[in-house]
Amino acid sequence: MKLWQKDKASLAAVEQFTVGRDREMDAYLAPFDVLGSLAHIAMLESVGLLPAEDLAVLQKELKNIYREIAEGNFVLEDGVEDIHSQVELLLTRRVGESGKKIHSGRSRNDQVLVDLKLFLRHELETIVGETKELFDLLQKQSEQYKGSLLPGYTHLQIAMPSSFGLWFGAYAESLVDDLIMLQGAYRVVNKNPLGSAAGYGSSFPLNRTMTTRLLGFEALNHNVVYAQMGRGKTEKLVAFALAGIAATVSRMAMDATLFMNQNFGFIGFPDELTTGSSIMPHKKNPDVWELIRSHCNKLQALPNEIAMMTVNLPSGYHRDLQLLKENLFPAFETLRSCLRMSRLMLENIRIKEDILKDEKYRYLFSVEVVNRLVLEGTPFREAYKQVGLDIESGKFEPDTDIRHTHEGSIGNLQNDAIKAQMDAVIGGFPFASVHAAIDALVK
Amino acid sequence: MKLWQKDKASLAAVEQFTVGRDREMDAYLAPFDVLGSLAHIAMLESVGLLPAEDLAVLQKELKNIYREIAEGNFVLEDGVEDIHSQVELLLTRRVGESGKKIHSGRSRNDQVLVDLKLFLRHELETIVGETKELFDLLQKQSEQYKGSLLPGYTHLQIAMPSSFGLWFGAYAESLVDDLIMLQGAYRVVNKNPLGSAAGYGSSFPLNRTMTTRLLGFEALNHNVVYAQMGRGKTEKLVAFALAGIAATVSRMAMDATLFMNQNFGFIGFPDELTTGSSIMPHKKNPDVWELIRSHCNKLQALPNEIAMMTVNLPSGYHRDLQLLKENLFPAFETLRSCLRMSRLMLENIRIKEDILKDEKYRYLFSVEVVNRLVLEGTPFREAYKQVGLDIESGKFEPDTDIRHTHEGSIGNLQNDAIKAQMDAVIGGFPFASVHAAIDALVK
Amino acid sequence: MKLWQKDKASLAAVEQFTVGRDREMDAYLAPFDVLGSLAHIAMLESVGLLPAEDLAVLQKELKNIYREIAEGNFVLEDGVEDIHSQVELLLTRRVGESGKKIHSGRSRNDQVLVDLKLFLRHELETIVGETKELFDLLQKQSEQYKGSLLPGYTHLQIAMPSSFGLWFGAYAESLVDDLIMLQGAYRVVNKNPLGSAAGYGSSFPLNRTMTTRLLGFEALNHNVVYAQMGRGKTEKLVAFALAGIAATVSRMAMDATLFMNQNFGFIGFPDELTTGSSIMPHKKNPDVWELIRSHCNKLQALPNEIAMMTVNLPSGYHRDLQLLKENLFPAFETLRSCLRMSRLMLENIRIKEDILKDEKYRYLFSVEVVNRLVLEGTPFREAYKQVGLDIESGKFEPDTDIRHTHEGSIGNLQNDAIKAQMDAVIGGFPFASVHAAIDALVK
Amino acid sequence: MKLWQKDKASLAAVEQFTVGRDREMDAYLAPFDVLGSLAHIAMLESVGLLPAEDLAVLQKELKNIYREIAEGNFVLEDGVEDIHSQVELLLTRRVGESGKKIHSGRSRNDQVLVDLKLFLRHELETIVGETKELFDLLQKQSEQYKGSLLPGYTHLQIAMPSSFGLWFGAYAESLVDDLIMLQGAYRVVNKNPLGSAAGYGSSFPLNRTMTTRLLGFEALNHNVVYAQMGRGKTEKLVAFALAGIAATVSRMAMDATLFMNQNFGFIGFPDELTTGSSIMPHKKNPDVWELIRSHCNKLQALPNEIAMMTVNLPSGYHRDLQLLKENLFPAFETLRSCLRMSRLMLENIRIKEDILKDEKYRYLFSVEVVNRLVLEGTPFREAYKQVGLDIESGKFEPDTDIRHTHEGSIGNLQNDAIKAQMDAVIGGFPFASVHAAIDALVK
Repeated sequence: MKLWQKDKASLAAVEQFTVGRDREMDAYLAPFDVLGSLAHIAMLESVGLLPAEDLAVLQKELKNIYREIAEGNFVLEDGVEDIHSQVELLLTRRVGESGKKIHSGRSRNDQVLVDLKLFLRHELETIVGETKELFDLLQKQSEQYKGSLLPGYTHLQIAMPSSFGLWFGAYAESLVDDLIMLQGAYRVVNKNPLGSAAGYGSSFPLNRTMTTRLLGFEALNHNVVYAQMGRGKTEKLVAFALAGIAATVSRMAMDATLFMNQNFGFIGFPDELTTGSSIMPHKKNPDVWELIRSHCNKLQALPNEIAMMTVNLPSGYHRDLQLLKENLFPAFETLRSCLRMSRLMLENIRIKEDILKDEKYRYLFSVEVVNRLVLEGTPFREAYKQVGLDIESGKFEPDTDIRHTHEGSIGNLQNDAIKAQMDAVIGGFPFASVHAAIDALVK
Repeated sequence: MKLWQKDKASLAAVEQFTVGRDREMDAYLAPFDVLGSLAHIAMLESVGLLPAEDLAVLQKELKNIYREIAEGNFVLEDGVEDIHSQVELLLTRRVGESGKKIHSGRSRNDQVLVDLKLFLRHELETIVGETKELFDLLQKQSEQYKGSLLPGYTHLQIAMPSSFGLWFGAYAESLVDDLIMLQGAYRVVNKNPLGSAAGYGSSFPLNRTMTTRLLGFEALNHNVVYAQMGRGKTEKLVAFALAGIAATVSRMAMDATLFMNQNFGFIGFPDELTTGSSIMPHKKNPDVWELIRSHCNKLQALPNEIAMMTVNLPSGYHRDLQLLKENLFPAFETLRSCLRMSRLMLENIRIKEDILKDEKYRYLFSVEVVNRLVLEGTPFREAYKQVGLDIESGKFEPDTDIRHTHEGSIGNLQNDAIKAQMDAVIGGFPFASVHAAIDALVK
Repeated sequence: MKLWQKDKASLAAVEQFTVGRDREMDAYLAPFDVLGSLAHIAMLESVGLLPAEDLAVLQKELKNIYREIAEGNFVLEDGVEDIHSQVELLLTRRVGESGKKIHSGRSRNDQVLVDLKLFLRHELETIVGETKELFDLLQKQSEQYKGSLLPGYTHLQIAMPSSFGLWFGAYAESLVDDLIMLQGAYRVVNKNPLGSAAGYGSSFPLNRTMTTRLLGFEALNHNVVYAQMGRGKTEKLVAFALAGIAATVSRMAMDATLFMNQNFGFIGFPDELTTGSSIMPHKKNPDVWELIRSHCNKLQALPNEIAMMTVNLPSGYHRDLQLLKENLFPAFETLRSCLRMSRLMLENIRIKEDILKDEKYRYLFSVEVVNRLVLEGTPFREAYKQVGLDIESGKFEPDTDIRHTHEGSIGNLQNDAIKAQMDAVIGGFPFASVHAAIDALVK
Repeated sequence: MKLWQKDKASLAAVEQFTVGRDREMDAYLAPFDVLGSLAHIAMLESVGLLPAEDLAVLQKELKNIYREIAEGNFVLEDGVEDIHSQVELLLTRRVGESGKKIHSGRSRNDQVLVDLKLFLRHELETIVGETKELFDLLQKQSEQYKGSLLPGYTHLQIAMPSSFGLWFGAYAESLVDDLIMLQGAYRVVNKNPLGSAAGYGSSFPLNRTMTTRLLGFEALNHNVVYAQMGRGKTEKLVAFALAGIAATVSRMAMDATLFMNQNFGFIGFPDELTTGSSIMPHKKNPDVWELIRSHCNKLQALPNEIAMMTVNLPSGYHRDLQLLKENLFPAFETLRSCLRMSRLMLENIRIKEDILKDEKYRYLFSVEVVNRLVLEGTPFREAYKQVGLDIESGKFEPDTDIRHTHEGSIGNLQNDAIKAQMDAVIGGFPFASVHAAIDALVK
């Protein structure tokens, strides 16, 4: 029976409608709910709202439950409304009535808020890790294939010489900027809403600074009305951070399907990673890349969905916010799987050599020749005219020796400098201090 | 006549369709185009691609043009295709053929890219400034009205005591987080794409590190393919940064229209700032707030629009990107005007005192009474039951003396700590070094 | 083992990634897949591609399977890739090798296409039914409460007299227009793609006109390339049709939460349909309305999501399309549940009487008085001035007797005319002929 | 001076902010505003609210103004707030005080509503016309090039034979379905909101049925609250109708840029319609197609923008709605220009013949050969195996004689049937009766 129920039972249909998929979503939050409770009760004891002996007993059992969750031995029992009730139920079964004291001085609202922040913070960290792995692979491939030339297109028309070194390296560098945006989202996430109660604070003499420290948050969401207002906003920022990485990966997938197309024929993959047909031996369907692309494009629509669900709601909690979980929570695993599958594909990529020897790429080098004449002293417009006339008269001879030397060009990829940027960005995440705080809480 | 034209003239309809609103959009980029050229020619001279005497002449005239633009004395003449051509035209009129040398070693693509980055960087800085002004006002109002209580709503139902101090202060704190995200966008913007040519680099021995320094960029977009790929991506990040601030302001506007509604009646504004009717004296239409809300919600749809226009385009330049300017460029002034109008409204706001004395807010204090009993030693469930019974029997006496003391609550707003956060965020922008670089370039 | 596999097994991770949630999504399509096969084999037989004796055997078993699905006795067995394979497996178990003949002359692509069309057509019909029920209820309430006045707001400011009759009736009429748009989507859905094979047709002498008739489609998707192009497009149209109804219901939910707010206090609901608190007796949280609103707003973001996933894909099938199912398929039940819950709420609504007697609504009648003077012969500006002066001097006496007589006004709701519109729209759906065709196919 | 102003002048900044781009937007509405007034005054006279002599005078002058607008001789004068005021001003200048009587019995709200409906109805009709012209051209090209084969791709991999006949014809058929959806929007638009006043009706004895007939509307927006609620909703439906056509055209543009790419090389265009370079003679940049694609993708984001700006607004007018005009109003001309430019391009398209003779398309025919064996009696799996073995051993001989005969296939395009569908859809628009009504009003 729920706390908010009065004399009469709600209708079953209402019950089902209002609970919705929330039990399923709660599974994501379980360990973080325990962490929040551990910090909360330590603080309660410190301000005299929980006897020291209760604290010891509750801490011991909460750590047990945390371990059980980690080991997969935790279920939301039938008839239990949500994760918070389930934890309380386990506690009271094991330690009696004092199990209920973990709810003193907070409300369901700030409990969910802090669970959400801890969950999002954790998931973002895993995304950083997976992104870094893809980055490393892209850089490795960029170095390995830096000598393999590709046609570069503008307007989808053959334009200038490019290289696999540039192509792989470009996507690596794109991920650096994606993590810069994600770091912004992480910083907003990494602030403590606990203690804001139902969004208006309370008369309890809480020590929110203490729970901030215990949970490894960088700062407080100070103002309690703002702490509540962060719901929805935080989810949108995080979704946008995911969408940024997804946009990079989606474009790479688009390139890959194009480069695998037989009219291009620049890259290939082992049969195990494509789907084919014994009567169409040239057909290697890039299903993996297509699904990566599709998942990533769906992720790109997620920030807009969250905006649509929260726009024009006045300040203060609304039940609407509950449904934000349903597309956001699984999005992390979706993106991780796209990052992992991208790596699997890229590790097995086969690069076609000598692509540019094909006659159709002949004029790719005309700009090169113009530039060379300019560097040798011919005024640009004259050089341009001369090459144009040579081409028209059939005398044009491409000089296929690429000598690009400036920063970031074919002959000077600067992958080290890009790696240094990436390391600097990742170094800016306070993962170590977050881990130290959480370890201290559950050890 | 355009460079790309061959023997025949394009049809006028094609001309009009492809030019579109680009001339209008180019006006935004004019000063930044000159800055890019100033950095580019200094670099060209340093690597031996421009005679020193030409450099001096070109610098002098470009600085004149920069000044003319600042003074409003610059027009895109009829028949001139774009800003780049206009600058070149002015130069050649004034200094002769050497005026054309500013285009050596770059292409239209990287020229537009760097213009765009410089423009966006500048606009973002103005947004930071306007946001800070609104923040300061909100904090001032929060302090001034910290003693004025408001009902706090959850589910739009009367729930707990709140205050104008909390309400103003919440929106101030929200802007801190919005600027954290904007800072991420700024960092991505503040990297130099110049030298990437058409997106594949060139055989010119450019010194991109030098132009990076001259233009005050924090870093290079190293990889030239990535530099080009930044087009569209950068615009989307910036749009999202604007959308974040817009979401905060939109919610405040929603609250304001609700609080002005006569059923709430919490706030009012002078007649000059509302629209009314002499036969409906109570009607004070909040048109300004409604238009702020609408503009801000439109801004919230902008990142999605940009994503829709760029998704699934393979790497390499596409003409599609041109149209991203049309809704993005005016968005900065739109947001600035919303920030300014919000300030005008908030400076003139009239707060109703003693709102909570109305009988309908009586039960707002019931949680307070329960908590007080708990703090005095009564177990929570017992306190809860007792207050419930008192209410049922009509004996409930609200204790309207609010004693919230914890961080971020009615009695302890922590506006100073929030201000310190804001100052830290703003201190993280490298505005000073950017200004120093630009000043050195044009002085 | 899959048909497309060659010598080597795909890696398990690839398998899992590419299958994704497709087995779950396939459950939605099961009965429609059988219908498509029934039509297909009858046609195959008619053109000499299937022996008559095989047809009889296959029809009998397919009808059995159809019944089993209807009775809930159908499962996608472990290791079976998809619904199509499961049906084939059951058939071959029961009738031997001829079970495989149902796949002759079509490909997986057009099989999925026709399943999808049949599924969407069926779901849209259920939505029409549920929408009509809500419409009927809204009209009933409009009539029942036509005498109960409400303040009408513009700019959220008290403006003119309105009524519950108008309020309920407005949402009813909104649903008429929503069904007009849905009918457009239905017409696009109700065309037959079967026979388009992989999107380029085939050399089999198929009779697509016959399957069109057998499946009750109104017309063919003639061009086979267009038939394939309909994938993604159809889903988007359908999503938009759902979003239209959702927008109506969402706005009604917004009104409801506002009208339940204690500052308005216009409507109420029994305790069973709200969530409350024994210490805050006035608090009746409208969780049901909030969740309806949130679900409906999420639905409003769905067309954009589908657009984002399909934009800029060249013509021809792409695996990306698979993922469109995941948010679209459950959307029908989501919308149906919102329509049902709206009805449950509206059936139990409690209307506050005599709202307008409250002094704060006094000036609501000022326009009425002006208009009356005008009707009695006073020029408008003079009447306006006179009422303004009366109000200023405190002499204004509202005449609260509302005599609105024109079409669609308080005194002349025209619910009958609106009902006639609704009946005409619903009469425009060819449900009867669709049912007749399907019944003939499975009986 | 505005009617709603009281004693004091609004601040100039507020004025500028609230007016915004509304004067520019009003230019679109001018002729429709006059039409609305013509219908309104005829009705006023019929119910005794306007003397017959005034009617005659006003009709005469309004028709003059209508003609002046049509001839381009109408300007919104400086200092005049909006189109409604401008029309009134012209009237009073010419006929004296009775010019003001055109506003009796309506409010600004229903006047804008009816203007908007008439404007949208008119614009939709022009879109139908332009769409039909593109349809006709596509059908013509489909017939002309029905013998020219193309490779058909699935997963962007070479799959089956296709043809230009199919390709052109597919986009033609797509437009049929797009107009079906647009017709739904048209039907919703084509209902009369006039007489709803500020959204709550009035005590004037208006005859709304009469204005419905005079303005050629198919029906009334009966309920006055719903009439007002149509604002925002109507714009969204119309935007979605445009987005549907835009999606078709965008995909065609994507195909075109791909087919123009030198690796495909299927189609070409005269130099005047592409942009090129004398030193890269093969480069024919498809700027026109890219801009068509970009404009069309932007249009696809428009319904979402409108939803974002209107979601969660309670019923009743809000000033937010004003801004919906700014992106929607120019969207019609944007789409028309895309349709026209598509026609210009397609009229000048050059088709490469004998594409499939290239060796790389050899296996395109393998499915054909399998199917032929099946039709000749070989069981499918055996035929499939045999062709697979032939390919593996190099003995495979493609039979390039395509004999597709079923409906909608290469050999049986059914363009006539598709044209019949299009004619039926267009025949379903009540353009003739709308024109008759408007002609009667202004003649």
